Amino acid sequence: MRFSRGRNFLLRVPEGKELLGFINEFARKNNVLIGTVSAIGSLKNPKIGYFDEDAGGYKVIELTGTYELVSLTGNISVKDGEPFAHIHVALGDSDGMLYGGHLIEAEVFVAEVFMQELLGELLERKPRENGLSLWDAVEL
Amino acid sequence: MRFSRGRNFLLRVPEGKELLGFINEFARKNNVLIGTVSAIGSLKNPKIGYFDEDAGGYKVIELTGTYELVSLTGNISVKDGEPFAHIHVALGDSDGMLYGGHLIEAEVFVAEVFMQELLGELLERKPRENGLSLWDAVEL
Amino acid sequence: MRFSRGRNFLLRVPEGKELLGFINEFARKNNVLIGTVSAIGSLKNPKIGYFDEDAGGYKVIELTGTYELVSLTGNISVKDGEPFAHIHVALGDSDGMLYGGHLIEAEVFVAEVFMQELLGELLERKPRENGLSLWDAVEL
Repeated sequence: MRFSRGRNFLLRVPEGKELLGFINEFARKNNVLIGTVSAIGSLKNPKIGYFDEDAGGYKVIELTGTYELVSLTGNISVKDGEPFAHIHVALGDSDGMLYGGHLIEAEVFVAEVFMQELLGELLERKPRENGLSLWDAVEL
Repeated sequence: MRFSRGRNFLLRVPEGKELLGFINEFARKNNVLIGTVSAIGSLKNPKIGYFDEDAGGYKVIELTGTYELVSLTGNISVKDGEPFAHIHVALGDSDGMLYGGHLIEAEVFVAEVFMQELLGELLERKPRENGLSLWDAVEL
Repeated sequence: MRFSRGRNFLLRVPEGKELLGFINEFARKNNVLIGTVSAIGSLKNPKIGYFDEDAGGYKVIELTGTYELVSLTGNISVKDGEPFAHIHVALGDSDGMLYGGHLIEAEVFVAEVFMQELLGELLERKPRENGLSLWDAVEL
């Protein structure tokens, strides 16, 4: 739960890349096991998810066209022994209306990503009864 | 206005907790007096506020059901001698539409919170004529 | 792409200021050449942009009235030899509906801004064929 600071990366993802896959691969190649991620930019044909507790899985919402990436907020931790990025996005259409949810995939038009590494005890996602993979919760 | 860095916390809030109360209590128990907060997750029956300048108070918007916590952005400073979290949230429904404003309260389904402590001179909220409690503003 | 940490600023922008201009001027006066920015607050008559790839420029969306600043996410780097803030915002109306995009300008009612400086090699925006000024992309 308490971490010290590691490296800081601020970078542009190449146009045409799939954003979530790029972030995961970037974390793996740089051995970032714990961290936070934020970004802005513009994405094409994003797929986002809404977690349906009754179904125990994500409802997929497929947007078409190009959207401003108004916010990207997330974290990196370990799942199945690998760095795993959990990311939520807000997306703006050409009229400024916002859509968003859990990032499933999106093609990068522009993505300016800030990743800050955290160092400390392993933070691991484990499958839970509700269908999600989550860290142990912290009691006060 | 200028601060050095303190501790970094990345944690999951237990399901069922009230999110804003948990963040405030976490800050108090850990003596985090100044800091920033971000989070993603999923919240139930969130109440959000829109500040109405004419009324000098918040209009309360009560959402029902479960929403993706698409972004949570905020800070911690001191109000009435205690750590006080000021937080805004963006929330996505099952169609990916976004709603948001000033976080008043929400039940946690999932909340993955990053809190970074800042160290320096006391940053304090004081009541202002417009009905808000605000830090002194910084002139350039 | 990889940076060490510099100074941390947490501050309130005076009411009535134009937000993007203030952030740029703050960065210039404090010589912040690379960094990240986040904020919450409340803004008046914000103008936001949606980048139209075909037109090679921003479509301007003018909102009127006061909006909760639900999220502000962005970065600072160098353009034409000066610090340059690239910022996206999500804005909530009195019913909690969200709008957003690329911040062009907005009058501050309240703005609580966190800026963290990054130190390292120059990160520079250069004009690209698509009409945007972008950093060199990072290949994995």
